[in-house]
This record gives sequence, C-alpha cells and structure tokens, in this order.
Amino acid sequence: MATFKLTLAYDGTDYIGWQRQATGVSIQGLLEDALREFDDRDVAVAGAGRTDAGVHALGQVASCSLDRTIDPRTLTRALNYKLPHDVRVRRARAMPPSFHARFDAHQKTYRYRLWNGSVLSPFQCRYAWHLPGALDIAAMCDAARLVEGTHDFAAFQGQGSDRSTTTRTVNRLRIADCGSRIDFEISGNGFLRHMVRILVGTLVEIGRGRRDSRWVSEVMASRDRNQAGQTAPAHGLFLVSVQYRHELAAEP
Amino acid sequence: MATFKLTLAYDGTDYIGWQRQATGVSIQGLLEDALREFDDRDVAVAGAGRTDAGVHALGQVASCSLDRTIDPRTLTRALNYKLPHDVRVRRARAMPPSFHARFDAHQKTYRYRLWNGSVLSPFQCRYAWHLPGALDIAAMCDAARLVEGTHDFAAFQGQGSDRSTTTRTVNRLRIADCGSRIDFEISGNGFLRHMVRILVGTLVEIGRGRRDSRWVSEVMASRDRNQAGQTAPAHGLFLVSVQYRHELAAEP
Repeated sequence: MATFKLTLAYDGTDYIGWQRQATGVSIQGLLEDALREFDDRDVAVAGAGRTDAGVHALGQVASCSLDRTIDPRTLTRALNYKLPHDVRVRRARAMPPSFHARFDAHQKTYRYRLWNGSVLSPFQCRYAWHLPGALDIAAMCDAARLVEGTHDFAAFQGQGSDRSTTTRTVNRLRIADCGSRIDFEISGNGFLRHMVRILVGTLVEIGRGRRDSRWVSEVMASRDRNQAGQTAPAHGLFLVSVQYRHELAAEP
Repeated sequence: MATFKLTLAYDGTDYIGWQRQATGVSIQGLLEDALREFDDRDVAVAGAGRTDAGVHALGQVASCSLDRTIDPRTLTRALNYKLPHDVRVRRARAMPPSFHARFDAHQKTYRYRLWNGSVLSPFQCRYAWHLPGALDIAAMCDAARLVEGTHDFAAFQGQGSDRSTTTRTVNRLRIADCGSRIDFEISGNGFLRHMVRILVGTLVEIGRGRRDSRWVSEVMASRDRNQAGQTAPAHGLFLVSVQYRHELAAEP
C-alpha cells in the first residue's frame, strides 16, 4: 500500500467542479476513474478544497492510497496519459499512510482575477471577471486589510452550507493592480462556501465607490449574507496552492 | 465615407484562420458580417497578415471603409457586442482613405511558444507546443542570429504558395528562455506561408542536438523545403503586432 500526494492544475471551464456528482464530469471523478483502471479497484481521492463549477486550480492537492507500489514519476505520467489535457497532475509524491489532503492542510491560497479594461482580452475571458469602469484600488486595499485576521465570516458564506463554525483566519489578502488586470490573492486556514467570491463582490462595491472601506467591517459584524456584495462569478477564481506542515518544516 | 484601422486580438483555436472561406468560420468573415449589419451593405475587411487555422493574434490589424461616420470608440463597442468573446477589437482608429492594413504594413512581429516542461500547463495547452526533453537554448540562439538579415527563405516556405519573390528581411529573432516556457519572437518586413513555423521546427532540430547551429544556413542556401525541419504546430503561434510608418513617424 502506498499513499500519494498529487498536485493538480486544471481549467475548470468544462467541469461541474471538484466533487464527484451524478450530474456531470468532475475533477475528482476523472481522477478516481483514471486510478481505478490503474489499481484495478475503486480508489478514493480526497481533495484539499472543493472547487465549484468553473473554478480553476494551479495547485489543488489530492491524496489517495494505492495497492500497487509505483514510482511517483511513473504515476504522474500514467495519470496524465489518461486525463484530458485541461486536467494535469503536476507532480506526485509518496507520503506516510496517514497523509490526508484535506485534514492535513495548513493554509490555502486563492487568486481572484478582475479585468478592468474596457475590452476583455480573448485570452482572459475564461479566467477573469470583466468589470470595466473606474475602480478605487486604494479603497479596496484599505478594506482588504480589515478582512485580514480571525473573524466570523458568516456574512460571506454562500447558501447550502452547514459548517459548525463560521470563524476563519485570513492570513493575508492583497490586491495587485497590474493595469487592466487586477488580482486578489487571499491566504487562510480555511474558507467557507463561496467566501472568496463574496469577499471579492463586496470589495468591488467599495472599489466602485458605492460604499466606503469600513463598510466591510459592518458587513462582517452583521453575520448576514444579505448585507454583503454579490458573489463574483466562478470563472475568475483559482485555487493557487495548499500548504502543509511537512512543507513548513522543510523550509530553512 | 470613413476609413478605420482596427487592432484585433483573437484566440484562433475554434476558427479556420483569418481568411474568409466557404468551409468554416473565419475571423475576416466574422468581422465582415458584423460590419454588414452595421453599415447595411457589404464591407470588405483587409487584414495585415493571413493567420492560418489555429493561429492566434494579440495585435492583428485590419482596415475597412464605412459609409457612415462614426466615433471609433462607438465602433469598437458595437463590433465587440456582435463578435464572439474570443475575437475582440482592441481599438479602432480613424485613418486617411488611402490606408490599407496589408499594403502599408512596415513590419510584423510574431511569437512562437514552446512548453519544455515535462507536464504541459492546462492553461497553455491551447497556446504552446509541448516539447519536453533537453533543449540546447544557446545553440538555438546561435542559429537564430544566422536567420536575422535579408535572405532567400524559399526553404522555409510551406506548400501552396506562389509568391513572386522568396527574399525577406528578418529584423530580429530572439529566444526568451523562461524556464518551462520558451518564446521565439521574430520581426520582419514580411513572412512567407508557414515561414515562422518552419523556422521554429528547424531551430528545434538544433535545440535537440540533431544538427549544429550552422545547419540553418545550409538549409537556407539549399532553397529546398525538404531540407528544413518540420512545420511547428499552428497553436503555438501568435501574431503579436503590425507596425506602420505612421506609427514610426509618431515615435519620439
């Protein structure tokens, strides 16, 4: 028996999201199907985060255990041979049997991309929310700093979720203004359903000048989803990376 | 009557190329159809370069003349409203009636992208030729310098072309080594059919160590297409920009 950590990149445009569902093709389903052929039995794949339909990943992490012993590079090649081109195993790594991609995750980093130019690049239309018009980036940055820290994020939770606690820690929320392209990068110990997208939708209200930057704290205090901004569209969101304790320990 | 210069970006993946043909959807056809609705008569659109099926553009240039007078920004918005998301008018500019996108072009710049990593990013699979394995970049750069200048490029011309002369001037051919991503950028006064792609295929033979860098000069001297390397696949190629004399004059 061998346990692996798989680091994955995928273009989520054509998928119903990470989680296996009867209604369409999921990333988890593609991986489990590829591994079943490979290990000749059902293999369960656990993902660090459940990306929604249309959400992309640069560094999603999944764990699985196989009966076969196999070199991680051979596993990477074999899986990529079976997977469609828009879903790739970037690398596989052998792990102790106890490793679990979700339970052991220490921090996740997401990126949300806005396209603020009047014309959306055809190379960004699958990967960015097109939002032309004036945006007050400085006000959004002020609001972003108020989001950092440990808070009750109940107001930023989408419907259909039943987490026992809505308190999370956002370690970092930065906004990179690259001209037409504006990237939000957010790191935290965990995220509620749609939390990144609702945070972006709320910061955009501030950027458009409809609210001032302190409004984000009022929304947070309300614990009421109806007080927050819209849920930004899925296709601007990327799961960038998942950090684990074993990685932190390995750092100098 | 008003003449316009349109600067266009498009993802060529789903199109049969620039030129209007009966067999499928072309960029020229999409533009002419959008302008016909707009001007209520047939409008001919001339492109600076005829990109092949699957080739992309960041800055293709087209010219057209309309009966209506119209603000260039309004024209840009109206065309983008009608065009699919993967074809965009980046800007429109009013020009003297004599302006012609092809005849007046002074220089064109193309980029060709290779992906040299063992795993192709899902976000590059439509835009880069996946070529894993060792590549001698220094040898390719040496060969690229031999391509610069005025030469007879007959050996680098694809079939089905009948240009009266095959002499062209390559002003610049540079290779940017960005780790997994390797970008060829080539500027010249004109390009033969498939010339950029055959040049890349030939430089790759040198990069793989099958030939030394001086071989590119032998191929050139032979004027024989069969001596050159393969035609690199269309989807790695981008028409980056087209330069005009009026732009050069405007520079400080």
